Amino acid sequence: MITQRSSKLEQAIRVDLAEGRLAVDRRLPPERELAERYRTTRITLREALSHLEMDGLIYRENRRGWFVSDRRLVYNPLWRTDFQRMTREQNRQASTELIEAVSAVAPDDICALLEQPSGTEFWRIRRRRRVDDRLVVFVEHHLSKTVFADILEQDLTGSLTNLYREKYALEYGDVSFEINPIALTGMPAAELHCSNGTFGLQIVRVNRDQAGRILDCDAEYWRHDAVSIRIDTRDGTP
Amino acid sequence: MITQRSSKLEQAIRVDLAEGRLAVDRRLPPERELAERYRTTRITLREALSHLEMDGLIYRENRRGWFVSDRRLVYNPLWRTDFQRMTREQNRQASTELIEAVSAVAPDDICALLEQPSGTEFWRIRRRRRVDDRLVVFVEHHLSKTVFADILEQDLTGSLTNLYREKYALEYGDVSFEINPIALTGMPAAELHCSNGTFGLQIVRVNRDQAGRILDCDAEYWRHDAVSIRIDTRDGTP
Repeated sequence: MITQRSSKLEQAIRVDLAEGRLAVDRRLPPERELAERYRTTRITLREALSHLEMDGLIYRENRRGWFVSDRRLVYNPLWRTDFQRMTREQNRQASTELIEAVSAVAPDDICALLEQPSGTEFWRIRRRRRVDDRLVVFVEHHLSKTVFADILEQDLTGSLTNLYREKYALEYGDVSFEINPIALTGMPAAELHCSNGTFGLQIVRVNRDQAGRILDCDAEYWRHDAVSIRIDTRDGTP
Repeated sequence: MITQRSSKLEQAIRVDLAEGRLAVDRRLPPERELAERYRTTRITLREALSHLEMDGLIYRENRRGWFVSDRRLVYNPLWRTDFQRMTREQNRQASTELIEAVSAVAPDDICALLEQPSGTEFWRIRRRRRVDDRLVVFVEHHLSKTVFADILEQDLTGSLTNLYREKYALEYGDVSFEINPIALTGMPAAELHCSNGTFGLQIVRVNRDQAGRILDCDAEYWRHDAVSIRIDTRDGTP
């Protein structure tokens, strides 16, 4: 599927990226400038850029254009560290935007994960997160309405982990999660400003408190090249 | 990027797949037959099939054509279960092919993971594995030549875990791993018979024995839709 033309073009772009000739402030010039610079068509250029995107070298945001990828955020889903702290510990900057916080009937698969009958209402909180200004993950939380009766009155742009601890005296206990490589579509793709079909990583977590009671379920949708999952059994599960 | 035409076509193929009208023995008809059947061009058809592939509904093997995807294999990288047993426990059938077993200088990043100086030679064992006859994962193992002096004389198409236990009296202890969503290229793509750039999941594991000594490093390259990682801290790490 990769034409010879595209491969040579890719190689040229790779070299220019590596030698810092292409991007200003991590941002690539617009596609029409790039096509002129490499004396090629937009279609051929797009193909080469797509390959470099699949390799995790660059990424695209709808309407904003192409950017150089930064290193992956290292993430241990067994740890109780909140996103802000995890990011700070890696000398990166995090921010969280609240998209929605409502009461809603959860889909059947979420009800099953939360061990409640189909049709149960939960608080549904949707957020998206940036690392160093890049949109990297869309998260949909479902929380028990009984346990967290007044949580919608709290500031939901910070760490839920801290909120649980400080307002509800609840600490995370056991966690179960599944990690599925998927194509991003629908709301996750739209909120991350990426095209339908962009490769991503879905992480669905069910969190329990110290007593083993289910607190919430998070479905995270990561841009594929923004994250590296790391677990070491010698670290335990703090 | 998705045209209306392609969306309708996709929908039609989805319905035919769901109602079992399309595939015989999980195999789709050749592309030219499909193009005729849906009264479309090969290019439009290919686009629709690619979208369905990204959604994990179907997959393509080079020179063999398109197949219906089976459910994902559930995989807990913390467990010591060997591949054969894990697959059997999910009522699936596993097989392993040996591609290569040689002595070779490991790349610098592998030497670092194995805590040895750059340029160290290891046994390099390359294998690929099928689940229910589908190629799902390419694995490159690097093993200590001191610990496993005569391992190349053993049958390397079975479980290394069992071989370690039975021939070397070694049990796995701690494990560390990282999981990276990547595009499959080069040897992993070629050995899995998929196109360069197919989405995949790379899992790099470093395994230690009961005494904490590093035994080996495996780099696994999975087809993205063939695997679901699941971890539950209530299960412990047997």
